[in-house]
Amino acid sequence: MTDLDSGLLSPVRAGTPIEPVTGDLAWLQAMLDAETALARAQARMGLVPPAAAETITKTGRAGEFDLRALAEAARGAANPVVGVVQALTAAVADADPAAADYVHRGSTSQDVLDTATMLVAARALQVITADLERTADALAVLAAEHRDTPAAGRTLTQHAVPTTFGLKAAGWLQGVLDALERLRALQRGGLPVELGGAAGTLAGYLEYARIDAPDGAAGDPARYVAELFGAYADELGLAVPVAPWHTARTPLADLAAALTLTSGVLGKIAVDVQSLSRTEVAEVSEPSAPGRGVSSAMPQKVNPVLATLIRSAAAQVPLLAVGVAQALLAEDERPAGAWHAEWQPLRECLRLVGGAAHTAAELTAGLRVDADRMAHNLRLTGALIVAERLAAVLAPVLGKAAAKAVVTRACLESAASGRPLGELLSREPEIAARFTRAELDSFADPARYTGAAGALVDRVLARHRELVPAR
Amino acid sequence: MTDLDSGLLSPVRAGTPIEPVTGDLAWLQAMLDAETALARAQARMGLVPPAAAETITKTGRAGEFDLRALAEAARGAANPVVGVVQALTAAVADADPAAADYVHRGSTSQDVLDTATMLVAARALQVITADLERTADALAVLAAEHRDTPAAGRTLTQHAVPTTFGLKAAGWLQGVLDALERLRALQRGGLPVELGGAAGTLAGYLEYARIDAPDGAAGDPARYVAELFGAYADELGLAVPVAPWHTARTPLADLAAALTLTSGVLGKIAVDVQSLSRTEVAEVSEPSAPGRGVSSAMPQKVNPVLATLIRSAAAQVPLLAVGVAQALLAEDERPAGAWHAEWQPLRECLRLVGGAAHTAAELTAGLRVDADRMAHNLRLTGALIVAERLAAVLAPVLGKAAAKAVVTRACLESAASGRPLGELLSREPEIAARFTRAELDSFADPARYTGAAGALVDRVLARHRELVPAR
Amino acid sequence: MTDLDSGLLSPVRAGTPIEPVTGDLAWLQAMLDAETALARAQARMGLVPPAAAETITKTGRAGEFDLRALAEAARGAANPVVGVVQALTAAVADADPAAADYVHRGSTSQDVLDTATMLVAARALQVITADLERTADALAVLAAEHRDTPAAGRTLTQHAVPTTFGLKAAGWLQGVLDALERLRALQRGGLPVELGGAAGTLAGYLEYARIDAPDGAAGDPARYVAELFGAYADELGLAVPVAPWHTARTPLADLAAALTLTSGVLGKIAVDVQSLSRTEVAEVSEPSAPGRGVSSAMPQKVNPVLATLIRSAAAQVPLLAVGVAQALLAEDERPAGAWHAEWQPLRECLRLVGGAAHTAAELTAGLRVDADRMAHNLRLTGALIVAERLAAVLAPVLGKAAAKAVVTRACLESAASGRPLGELLSREPEIAARFTRAELDSFADPARYTGAAGALVDRVLARHRELVPAR
Amino acid sequence: MTDLDSGLLSPVRAGTPIEPVTGDLAWLQAMLDAETALARAQARMGLVPPAAAETITKTGRAGEFDLRALAEAARGAANPVVGVVQALTAAVADADPAAADYVHRGSTSQDVLDTATMLVAARALQVITADLERTADALAVLAAEHRDTPAAGRTLTQHAVPTTFGLKAAGWLQGVLDALERLRALQRGGLPVELGGAAGTLAGYLEYARIDAPDGAAGDPARYVAELFGAYADELGLAVPVAPWHTARTPLADLAAALTLTSGVLGKIAVDVQSLSRTEVAEVSEPSAPGRGVSSAMPQKVNPVLATLIRSAAAQVPLLAVGVAQALLAEDERPAGAWHAEWQPLRECLRLVGGAAHTAAELTAGLRVDADRMAHNLRLTGALIVAERLAAVLAPVLGKAAAKAVVTRACLESAASGRPLGELLSREPEIAARFTRAELDSFADPARYTGAAGALVDRVLARHRELVPAR
Repeated sequence: MTDLDSGLLSPVRAGTPIEPVTGDLAWLQAMLDAETALARAQARMGLVPPAAAETITKTGRAGEFDLRALAEAARGAANPVVGVVQALTAAVADADPAAADYVHRGSTSQDVLDTATMLVAARALQVITADLERTADALAVLAAEHRDTPAAGRTLTQHAVPTTFGLKAAGWLQGVLDALERLRALQRGGLPVELGGAAGTLAGYLEYARIDAPDGAAGDPARYVAELFGAYADELGLAVPVAPWHTARTPLADLAAALTLTSGVLGKIAVDVQSLSRTEVAEVSEPSAPGRGVSSAMPQKVNPVLATLIRSAAAQVPLLAVGVAQALLAEDERPAGAWHAEWQPLRECLRLVGGAAHTAAELTAGLRVDADRMAHNLRLTGALIVAERLAAVLAPVLGKAAAKAVVTRACLESAASGRPLGELLSREPEIAARFTRAELDSFADPARYTGAAGALVDRVLARHRELVPAR
Repeated sequence: MTDLDSGLLSPVRAGTPIEPVTGDLAWLQAMLDAETALARAQARMGLVPPAAAETITKTGRAGEFDLRALAEAARGAANPVVGVVQALTAAVADADPAAADYVHRGSTSQDVLDTATMLVAARALQVITADLERTADALAVLAAEHRDTPAAGRTLTQHAVPTTFGLKAAGWLQGVLDALERLRALQRGGLPVELGGAAGTLAGYLEYARIDAPDGAAGDPARYVAELFGAYADELGLAVPVAPWHTARTPLADLAAALTLTSGVLGKIAVDVQSLSRTEVAEVSEPSAPGRGVSSAMPQKVNPVLATLIRSAAAQVPLLAVGVAQALLAEDERPAGAWHAEWQPLRECLRLVGGAAHTAAELTAGLRVDADRMAHNLRLTGALIVAERLAAVLAPVLGKAAAKAVVTRACLESAASGRPLGELLSREPEIAARFTRAELDSFADPARYTGAAGALVDRVLARHRELVPAR
Repeated sequence: MTDLDSGLLSPVRAGTPIEPVTGDLAWLQAMLDAETALARAQARMGLVPPAAAETITKTGRAGEFDLRALAEAARGAANPVVGVVQALTAAVADADPAAADYVHRGSTSQDVLDTATMLVAARALQVITADLERTADALAVLAAEHRDTPAAGRTLTQHAVPTTFGLKAAGWLQGVLDALERLRALQRGGLPVELGGAAGTLAGYLEYARIDAPDGAAGDPARYVAELFGAYADELGLAVPVAPWHTARTPLADLAAALTLTSGVLGKIAVDVQSLSRTEVAEVSEPSAPGRGVSSAMPQKVNPVLATLIRSAAAQVPLLAVGVAQALLAEDERPAGAWHAEWQPLRECLRLVGGAAHTAAELTAGLRVDADRMAHNLRLTGALIVAERLAAVLAPVLGKAAAKAVVTRACLESAASGRPLGELLSREPEIAARFTRAELDSFADPARYTGAAGALVDRVLARHRELVPAR
Repeated sequence: MTDLDSGLLSPVRAGTPIEPVTGDLAWLQAMLDAETALARAQARMGLVPPAAAETITKTGRAGEFDLRALAEAARGAANPVVGVVQALTAAVADADPAAADYVHRGSTSQDVLDTATMLVAARALQVITADLERTADALAVLAAEHRDTPAAGRTLTQHAVPTTFGLKAAGWLQGVLDALERLRALQRGGLPVELGGAAGTLAGYLEYARIDAPDGAAGDPARYVAELFGAYADELGLAVPVAPWHTARTPLADLAAALTLTSGVLGKIAVDVQSLSRTEVAEVSEPSAPGRGVSSAMPQKVNPVLATLIRSAAAQVPLLAVGVAQALLAEDERPAGAWHAEWQPLRECLRLVGGAAHTAAELTAGLRVDADRMAHNLRLTGALIVAERLAAVLAPVLGKAAAKAVVTRACLESAASGRPLGELLSREPEIAARFTRAELDSFADPARYTGAAGALVDRVLARHRELVPAR
């Protein structure tokens, strides 16, 4: 019964660093951290005896509680906090009965669970951004190394015009930097503590403050709110909200959106690696490792499994995340179902994105690039891949329509006969009168039609240096 | 590290009967069942020594394997089967080295995992349909008992015209019977074994058949396919497919659709129970139980937690299921990511629907219905709730537009003054000339304007008796 | 202002036969059909004068109404029916004031719009299934013609083992037949009329029946329900429901599921056509047509645009459909938003699936298959693609592990040196002792390792003949 | 055939200001704007004759083109741009044949359509943010006016503790401000032009630049990129990208996320208005208008149709938006389907959000708030709604558990008997010894237990003043 999910069906994250920070134990610890930080924040305001806060803090260790019992008890209140509070209170009472009264003082389940969610998110984002930075660095190396490595550009599955592998890697890097920027913005202020009490008025907290310190901050609610928010956020390293967000779920929607973007930019790398790994294309291959990419049936297979794992995550995350976003329609002061439908999908999003980022760091760091194969493929269609250029060059000479027709005909003949395109084009007197064979040969060389690829790579690399300085 | 998911974030299913049949251990057992059944099926065809099949079968017990190690190993192949086959082969070899050669003979990872998925689904559907049947029975009792209990019908949140609580329950029952019908259809033939080998041609199976029984069925591929499909399906109690469905994922799409429907019809019950439970409405309340519906802050609260749990599932399932449906776009002979993105979401669907069905059975069996409160609410707007009827009745007398105006005016006056509507209407000479006070009073009685509600309840109950005979 | 959507952003369906049956005009006509059929059904029961029913029927022509004015008026009631009823009533009154009283008699907006939705669906499904049948026929031809055309089977983007192109086409056909089966099941009874009145009790209908025929069917509600349902369904060619389904939305969920499946099975064809069309693969190409597949920049490009259009639909439909399924959570007797969120997404689903099916019929009928290129690609990795077979064949001779190693080494050497694999394997004395060169050459021939592909094709073709007999 | 979508099935946006800026005509105009701005940008760089740029600009008026013909032609290339370029080129050629050569010079379909998408988005966001600002202003008025209006706080459908209506309105305002902030961030730099040419290298542009101005900017690609990006962005009022984003779709993912958030925060208002409008609750009602909220059957009904319309949008947008986000997995240099699946869903998102924002502005500006009814409902459960407070106050006197028990018992007795709670509590000697009747009565007064609601309202209003200064 403890083997409900050990990762068997989700290899993208099995055994990766995201698992320990997103599992049920981590979530329980975060709830306990929310409870203990509350006691300490209240102690800082003179509302809870320091010794009680200390006892509560010491008691709040997840490993001491029966996770499965808490899970089953969660059915009673439709959320796990009620049971956690009972268990924590009992444990504190064992150590110091007087301290037990100060557990969860003035609080409500949603304050604890929302704050715990932000804590888990904050911890998971550290893991995720670290792997994204590793990925970005690896991509920057690839982009720089292959800044001028010509390769076929492909659109709608067909060879289009040449590009460079560096520009492709820079495109991947662009996406990763976008994701990193958005996740960091969340880390810098998008993960607020939750404090609202039973219906978001903080009435319970205020009441206890009045009881516990009759002449204290409770007399000035505005000051009290500012102090409690500040102390609590400080204890937890989270942000200060403008107001309770029990039913104003922007922090979760933002998180869901950033995780969707992250899964998407990693998924883009994965689909390209797979496209370039196809047996017939073979321009890149995944880093090898013992036992990786093996098939249960075929001894020769080396599958692009890292990319496959990443895609498996990228397929799941947006759908899980949209459920979190749909919970924005949280009716009343606490909805009867929408809130409850956020937890598991959000956890899965964090877990899948964490697994995908870790896998992407490994994939990009070890990606093997076959520049010769790229050169080979680039010439597969003869000069057809530079037909755009030739049509442009010859248009002033022959007129636009005639240029297109001549070029297409010559390209096909060149491909069929093997004769150099420059030679075929030279047969047209107007062309020969304007361009030398050398010029024509140069126009027909795919490797010399990569446009501003190098300059574009440089632009992206500059952004990388700015966002992820060398460490 | 084993506490990745003990149900803490998904109380709708924590501790319910669906968990043991959908957890990782259950999935591993299903993979082992797929492997051992294959050996037995091949043994029935004379291709595997009976003793080897027996040894393999005896060895295939999930509890004997290290689940977490298998989960981590799954990253190597991007699926768990390769590791499972290695572990099973090693364990069989320990018992009988000769038998080890017959493990996974001719097979491929997807054959095993797809078949295991169908096995898990079959086992989960048994649990789910049993709870749906209990739910249907409870709803039938409610519909019959309250066949003629008048209540306010509400549309767009406003009182509309009267209905009966029985008809509402019958509406819920309709949905549950629809879901039951579709799940049973799946049980009766929608869950096929998978057998295709490396690329869906069965070539590996045939090759071993040729090697193992040179004069056997392999010589006639059509017959061989029919025999192997038949024997394998028979061993597992699953259906025979027309052909391998590695990339023709209809069985999964059908399952996803049926689970979406099931979550939806249960969710419909939940939203109605919540709407009727609102403090201001108070027409129904959930069955009480120790510790249920409690709040961490408010001693008086009795929350509709069962309905809340069901809604939390109903919010998640369609989005998980649509991911499974998107995997229909499975490229080539085995896709590089789409297949891998099916497993976890499908498991979650099964688990959430199982939890929701179990919760619904409990909710409907114990739902407390307050007919007096329904009668009270029905009269909240005076006779406004039968304005439709009065307008219809008076139209032939006053003309359509005048009737609407007179009725609306009289209803509002009646509500404000407390004077009986019949009296007010009688003041209009044309009305008094046509209808007696008693007739008018009867028209104005919400409890006497429930239309064909009773007959409709009977139609639904007849369907219930047919689909879920008394047991 | 009338150019809100002329198809510019949805080329998959622009100009295809699905557009006229799913546009706003078609939807308006269906609403009018629902209204006029109601009058005729009531006339058959003696509740409406035949002349009035006839006048109403004659007046109900969509082209006579101002669509845009009705659209804007729909904001007032949050649905278009109220305005349609007013406009129809006015138009009928112009022709015959007495008949106007019989428009929408006893009815409610949802009865009309739900019935109209089923009518639109029924008409759209005729268009869709016709194109699916054409697609199935084309695929059957491809499967039969290429029953034995060897081709590389590809899994996780890599060559795996051989298959046949016929089996691939049969796999596509399997999906299309699955979709056809489900859509036909809907056509045969899954599209019911809606009749419930204001809150689903039929009270309004019954009241008018009592007024219009005091001694008529209204006295026996059960009989009345049966007669009205029957007459109405018969007028419209739709199915008879067990009870009103205002908030038991199974018919819509079923429709959404079937459309998702259909879009998915067509999308599967599209992704495979694209995979096989890649410049480096080039095994199939789309049928050419003037102006098709052109690029705005590159004169040489012939893009797989039909497959691209189909994929664009397959990407959208499941997400639109899941919105329809989420509307199962329809609170009360008519929900305040869920119902209103069904219409546009369902229409888009029908439209996209219709466009995709039409496009698929064209794609499959004209698909060009290059068997020579398939043979060429099949040999790209030398004999690696039959390594599975060779390992199986040699295992009894060398032992399982040694066989794998020998085979892999020989395959790689053969690929590198160009020397025949049979020759290299013969160097091993144990192998030479057991197999002749001819036998080894045969084992190493990819074209001779297609397993039961032919037999599987035959199984699928048999299903095709049964479901789509020659016409 | 032009009546494919006149808004009939989407009343939330029918006739609202978003329609003219998001319809097909608007999209066509944006494509033409992208083309003409390109010519002007190239003219600024000396690459296109000014007269040609002027002619192109004058010709680019959407009203002059046949929208339906362009829509049908779009099937040929799977996108509408190829047809638009042909039609524009022909129209320019009619005016000045020499200018025609400068249409779409160096460009590719995706450059034009992506840029047009950003233009449409920019124009739509102006409409949307204006309506959000109106909504925010209206909510600020509500929050300020009702800063201290007590009302029942509701959680999980049940009365919880008191709150104020002002805090509820402030919560709605929080969400609207969040959405506004994110949309404005997009307006300030999140909507870039697209310029990449056939495969994102800008090779075509550079080639023409070389041809058109041999000694010009083309010689220094880095400078050329910077100049072209700058001039083009300047012409269109859009942002400068780091690099082409043909397959790095962050701008679209960001837009989709912001629209999802916007639809969600508006949907939150709608569900609350509906909850508070329920016949039994009746605390707010929608602004009335002729013909609004009417039913086709029930003369008395006044439905919350504005909220219903908003919810219909909020139900659709996240699912449409997630499709846009899934298109992040754009393979190669231009994907074969993912890009094509963005256009229609994104347009629908813009259109639905625009309609919802317009509807929300109307709803919030005219919302009728019944403070008396709120006070009435607040007392529905006697003092149960302040049980939390009483338990806290009495805990130091009686102990925590005893306090809870005494309070709950007294509250229930008070509710049943009508006797004042203060009186009942005074019977307990320990309580009477500590608190006066007046104190107890005060504790038991729901209107005096609104915590820091006022201070929280002030915090949100301060944020409103900062983000939406009085205009």
